[in-house]
Amino acid sequence: MRLRNVKNAEEIINIHSLVVKEVDKNTFNNSNPIHLEIGSGKGDFIIEMSKKYPNLNFIAIEKYSGVLVKALAKIKESNNLRFILFDAKAINEIIKVNIEALYLNFSDPWPKKRHAKRRLTHPDFLLNYESLFKKAVNIYLKTDNKAFFAYSIVSLSENNYIFKEVSLNLTNEDIETQETEYERKFKAQGVTINYLYATKKI
Amino acid sequence: MRLRNVKNAEEIINIHSLVVKEVDKNTFNNSNPIHLEIGSGKGDFIIEMSKKYPNLNFIAIEKYSGVLVKALAKIKESNNLRFILFDAKAINEIIKVNIEALYLNFSDPWPKKRHAKRRLTHPDFLLNYESLFKKAVNIYLKTDNKAFFAYSIVSLSENNYIFKEVSLNLTNEDIETQETEYERKFKAQGVTINYLYATKKI
Repeated sequence: MRLRNVKNAEEIINIHSLVVKEVDKNTFNNSNPIHLEIGSGKGDFIIEMSKKYPNLNFIAIEKYSGVLVKALAKIKESNNLRFILFDAKAINEIIKVNIEALYLNFSDPWPKKRHAKRRLTHPDFLLNYESLFKKAVNIYLKTDNKAFFAYSIVSLSENNYIFKEVSLNLTNEDIETQETEYERKFKAQGVTINYLYATKKI
Repeated sequence: MRLRNVKNAEEIINIHSLVVKEVDKNTFNNSNPIHLEIGSGKGDFIIEMSKKYPNLNFIAIEKYSGVLVKALAKIKESNNLRFILFDAKAINEIIKVNIEALYLNFSDPWPKKRHAKRRLTHPDFLLNYESLFKKAVNIYLKTDNKAFFAYSIVSLSENNYIFKEVSLNLTNEDIETQETEYERKFKAQGVTINYLYATKKI
């Protein structure tokens, strides 16, 4: 469903100037801090963030080409934003720089217990993310899924993360964050959004 | 509202055989582990727990006499349950034994920021609770209030608690716990219950 209605997705991705295969020290022509979103979807969040914070660099990873092309259609040029078509599993193979923040917005909750290993807050993924950070890991997570949120709190906590911000009913009056497509849709339906910011010294 | 419709509350409390002024090593005639509930309300939770777990001892603290008498009306005798009319603020003055678990069920959320110090998961209270435990602090919390739950996660986390169990939609199929009066009422109204079990080695 996600992929098939976008023709030539791979071709569009291959020629788009903001798409890269990997990020190294030459990707951005500056030493500004780098923020990463895994599962950037249709891109609203990361595109808005890159405009709002010109003194930060942003990397958006998305595994579905049919979704990534929808983000690419929204932006042509940017000094501080790059997209990668890739799976989260082996991100340290393609991110060869240190990052300062990781965003997980409305990740697939993988509700079945036997799929727990696929959840982006599974301990194996957390270990993977950690290798990208230098002094402290900073993870910002949003989800409508209560079970995935609860799972993430336990997983992060057991891996020694400290929660600095938590909301079970995120609004900009509560904690100001950049809205995502899903968030806008869910809020319109009256679905509450769960949010956390967790950090860990390394 | 809570107090005034129960006449002679203080008198009833004074003569009830399960009400004590403090708990010391002679209160229970055994060395079984002691579990404490702060804010025991109308008592359903702690009374059922005391029946379900005869090999544990239970202490119920409630600050409103008009509420405590409603709990007392439900039980006459018990080997392993005692009630105290007291405020949570100085519990270590009246609990002179080590406890193994603390229950905070549907505590007053004190939604206004200027009242944060009154929330039962404020760092000052956590410090107070800690003095009651020996090797590890174990806190079990239930609430319908999203803001209080979020606040509690941050406060516990910043005080080095690890979350072992979390649910944003507690049901007995998910995590089996003893229902409270509020819980039954809220579930009937379709309100979701938030639950956590947090622990900390000391």
